[in-house]
Amino acid sequence: MRNFTSVADVTNVSALVNETLDLKKNPYAFSQLGKNKTLGLIFLNPSLRTRLSSQKAGQNLGMEVIVMNMDKEGWALETRDGVIMNGTTVEHIREAAAVMGQYFDVLGIRSFPGLQNRDEDYSEDILQKFIKFAQIPVVSLESGTRHPLQSLADLITITEHSTAKPRPKVVLTWAPHVKPLPQAVPNSFAEWMCQADVDFVITHPHGYELAENFTEGATITYNQDEALQNADFIYVKNWSAYHDYGKILTTDSGWLLTNERLRITNQGKVMHCLPVRRDLELSSEILDGPNSLVIPEAANRVYAAQVVLKRILEANF
Amino acid sequence: MRNFTSVADVTNVSALVNETLDLKKNPYAFSQLGKNKTLGLIFLNPSLRTRLSSQKAGQNLGMEVIVMNMDKEGWALETRDGVIMNGTTVEHIREAAAVMGQYFDVLGIRSFPGLQNRDEDYSEDILQKFIKFAQIPVVSLESGTRHPLQSLADLITITEHSTAKPRPKVVLTWAPHVKPLPQAVPNSFAEWMCQADVDFVITHPHGYELAENFTEGATITYNQDEALQNADFIYVKNWSAYHDYGKILTTDSGWLLTNERLRITNQGKVMHCLPVRRDLELSSEILDGPNSLVIPEAANRVYAAQVVLKRILEANF
Amino acid sequence: MRNFTSVADVTNVSALVNETLDLKKNPYAFSQLGKNKTLGLIFLNPSLRTRLSSQKAGQNLGMEVIVMNMDKEGWALETRDGVIMNGTTVEHIREAAAVMGQYFDVLGIRSFPGLQNRDEDYSEDILQKFIKFAQIPVVSLESGTRHPLQSLADLITITEHSTAKPRPKVVLTWAPHVKPLPQAVPNSFAEWMCQADVDFVITHPHGYELAENFTEGATITYNQDEALQNADFIYVKNWSAYHDYGKILTTDSGWLLTNERLRITNQGKVMHCLPVRRDLELSSEILDGPNSLVIPEAANRVYAAQVVLKRILEANF
Repeated sequence: MRNFTSVADVTNVSALVNETLDLKKNPYAFSQLGKNKTLGLIFLNPSLRTRLSSQKAGQNLGMEVIVMNMDKEGWALETRDGVIMNGTTVEHIREAAAVMGQYFDVLGIRSFPGLQNRDEDYSEDILQKFIKFAQIPVVSLESGTRHPLQSLADLITITEHSTAKPRPKVVLTWAPHVKPLPQAVPNSFAEWMCQADVDFVITHPHGYELAENFTEGATITYNQDEALQNADFIYVKNWSAYHDYGKILTTDSGWLLTNERLRITNQGKVMHCLPVRRDLELSSEILDGPNSLVIPEAANRVYAAQVVLKRILEANF
Repeated sequence: MRNFTSVADVTNVSALVNETLDLKKNPYAFSQLGKNKTLGLIFLNPSLRTRLSSQKAGQNLGMEVIVMNMDKEGWALETRDGVIMNGTTVEHIREAAAVMGQYFDVLGIRSFPGLQNRDEDYSEDILQKFIKFAQIPVVSLESGTRHPLQSLADLITITEHSTAKPRPKVVLTWAPHVKPLPQAVPNSFAEWMCQADVDFVITHPHGYELAENFTEGATITYNQDEALQNADFIYVKNWSAYHDYGKILTTDSGWLLTNERLRITNQGKVMHCLPVRRDLELSSEILDGPNSLVIPEAANRVYAAQVVLKRILEANF
Repeated sequence: MRNFTSVADVTNVSALVNETLDLKKNPYAFSQLGKNKTLGLIFLNPSLRTRLSSQKAGQNLGMEVIVMNMDKEGWALETRDGVIMNGTTVEHIREAAAVMGQYFDVLGIRSFPGLQNRDEDYSEDILQKFIKFAQIPVVSLESGTRHPLQSLADLITITEHSTAKPRPKVVLTWAPHVKPLPQAVPNSFAEWMCQADVDFVITHPHGYELAENFTEGATITYNQDEALQNADFIYVKNWSAYHDYGKILTTDSGWLLTNERLRITNQGKVMHCLPVRRDLELSSEILDGPNSLVIPEAANRVYAAQVVLKRILEANF
C-alpha cells in the first residue's frame, strides 16, 4: 500500500479486516516496525478521534509521531497555482507539502471541504496536491469527499458484532443537524459497504442523494421505516445536500432515531462516527442504551489506523 | 490509587511524600513501568507548569504522552444532560470522555471553574463526569475546587526545606489581584496542610473565607501581621470570594508581601504556585531574593505528578 | 557549545559543517546520546520548518521533545522589569524561563522582533533573558536579529552543491513583499557567509542596508544585475528597513528573480528560507525549475538542528 485515501487503495478488503482484528489482539507485536520512522499528522481542521487514534496507532508501531494543527500553529496555505501571493496566504502547498515530505516518512493529512464549490471539493485538490508534492506515502485523515480510516473502523466494528447471519443488513440513515456537514463520512461508508459482504441500504429525505459513484450497488429509499425493517446495523449520520451543494434542505426531527423506531429492526446495533449532537442527530436513549456501538466503533479507529500504517511501512521501507 | 483528585485519594500522606523524595533522587528508576501505556493530558484551559511537568513525569516513567488542548485543538463540549444539542457545543462529555477512555490508559484533565455558579463549580460536575464516563484512572490537573498535584508539590517542598523544628508554622496568605481567580489552589493547599504535620494558619481580608470543609483544623485570622509572626513558610495566593461567589472584594495593596513584612517571620520561606503577577500579588524583591522557593516548588511538580502516575500504574495494570 | 544563538557560538565553522554532513549520512548514530534528556521547544510565534525539523532532530538523538506554542497554549509573558503586573501579561519571563529550566535539559526558543522599536529588538532582550533565567543551554529558533539554525542549514546546502570552484560566489538579494518582515534571516545569513569560504555580495534597493556588524566583509551593491553576474548561489529574501526601522520602502517588482535574470548568473542555484510568497518574492518558474534548492535547503534544517543539539549534549551533560 502506497497511499490510503479510499477503499480503492485496498486490494482485498476482507483480508485487511482480518489483519486488523489480529492486530487488535496484540497491538504491540510490531513495535519495532516503525523504529526511526516519523509519522506527521497535519490537521487543517479540528479533530479529536482521528488525531488521538492516529497518534496512538503510530506510537504502537514504534513511530515517532509529530502532530501539527497547521490552521492554528502555522499559517494559511495557498493551494491555487498561478496567483501572485500578495494576500493572506503565507505559504504555497507546493513548498509546505514538499518540506513535510523531507521531514516525515509517512504523512497523515486532514482537510475538510469548503462546501461552497462542489467541483473544487470533489476534485480533492488539496489531498492530491499533498500526495503529489510530499512524495511520501499519504494517509487521508478525512478529505473533501471521504473518511476512509473511519469507514475501515466501521467495517471492523460490523464484522466484530455480526452474528451467525451470513449477510447482515446494514442501513445508512440520514439524520437532522443544524449545520451543513460534509458528505465525506456517508460517501466513504457507502463505498466500503458496497464492497463488503452485507446487504446495504441507504435512506434519506428527498434531495439528499449522494454522488452515485459512492453508492453503486446500494439500495436507496426515501422511506426510513422501510429501510430499518430487520436492519442489523444502523449507521446514523447527517450530511448536507450533494446536488444542491452544501445546503440544509430539512431539519425534520421525524428522522431522529429512537428506541421506538429500533423495534422494527432486528435488534439493530446503532453506529455513528462521532461527534454526535445528542437528541438532534441521535437520541440519548439509544446512545446510552444497549444497542449503541459508538464507543467500540471509536476504539477501533486505533486499529484501523494501525493496520494502514503497518501496511505502508511494510510496503515502502 | 485509582484516581487522584484530592488528598482523600491518599491513604498515607507522609508515605507518599517520602516516596516522592526517593523518586526525585532517581527519576528514571521506573522507566519501564509505563511501557505501552498512554497518558492523555486534556486541557480545557491553558497551562504551563502542569502541562510540562505532567508530560515530563509520564515520559520519565516510559509512558507515551498525548497532550491535547481541547479548547483550542478540538471543540466545545456539552456537559449538561437532557439538552437538545442544537447550539454551539459539538460533542457531549459522555462520548468525549468515553472515547478518551478507549485511547488512553490514564487520563489527566484540567477544567477551571466558571466562577459564575458556585453550586455548579463545587459539584465538580466536569471532573466527575470524566471519571464516570472515561472509566480509566483519572488525575486532576486542576479542577473547579482543587489542584492536588500542586498541593503535593507544595508539601514536598515544605518537607525538603524544613529545618530541625518538629512542626513548622505554615501560613497561607491572600494577596491582591486584578482578576477573579478560582479558590482551587488555596482550597487544596488548605486541605493538604490540615493533614500534614504543620501548624497551619490562614489569613485573608474579611469576606474571603474559604469553604469550611477545606479549612477544618486551620487557624484563621484577618490580621496578616499576626499570622506572619514566626512563620516558617508563607504561601502567597490570590483568590476570589467563596461566599460572595467569584467576586473581588478588595485589591488592598497592604496585603502585598514585602521584605519588610518578612522580618516578623522566622526567616520565612515564600511560596507561590505560579504564574504570579509581580508587584501586584507578590513583590519582586521577595521573588528575586533568598527567601523565595517558587522555582524549586515548580520543579517539584514533576515528581508530584510522577509519584501519582507511578502509584496508578502499579495499582491498576 | 553552551548556547547557540549566532555564528559567534561556533569556534570552527567548517568543522561544524563537516560534522553535519557526517551526521546526515547516519542520522541515528547518536540515538543514545539524548536518552533521558528533554528538549523543550517554546514558540512565541508560529513556525513550520523550525518546529518540525527541531522536533525531529531531538528525536533522532533520542531526546524527549516537548513542543509548546506559548502564545496559543499558554499566556502572555511580561518581559520588562519594574512594572506592576496589573495588565494583560500573566507571567513574568523571569519565572517562566526559570521553570522551563527546571523541566528541560535544553531549551529552544523562538521570538520574533516587534519591528516597532529597533533598540529593543536589537538588544535581544527576550532571548538573553531566557538564557539568563533558564540557566540551561539555549538554542535560538529565530530571535529578533538572527536565525542561526537557518544559516547553518544554508551553509551546509551551499557546501553540498558547490562544484570544483574553490570560492563560490554567493549573492544575497532583497526581494519584494507586502508585509514588513524581520531582518533576522538576512542578518544571520550575512554573518555566516562572512565567515565562510565564499565571495559574498549583498544587493538591495537604497535604504535597505542591514546593520553593519552583520555585513562586515561583504560587497554591497544597489545594482542587482551587477551582483548576479556569475553568481553560483542566489539567496532570495525580503526584509524591512533597518535604518527606517521596520518600514517597507518599496515593493518594486523589478527585484523579482526570474529565469530571464538567472541567465547572467553561473547557472546559479536559488535559495530561500521559506515560507516564500510565489510570484511576489520569488517566481514560480524558478521555484519549480531545476535551479531551485529550497527543498533540500529545508531538509538540511534537521541536520543543522541535530548537530547543534549533539554538540550541546556532548559539552554539557
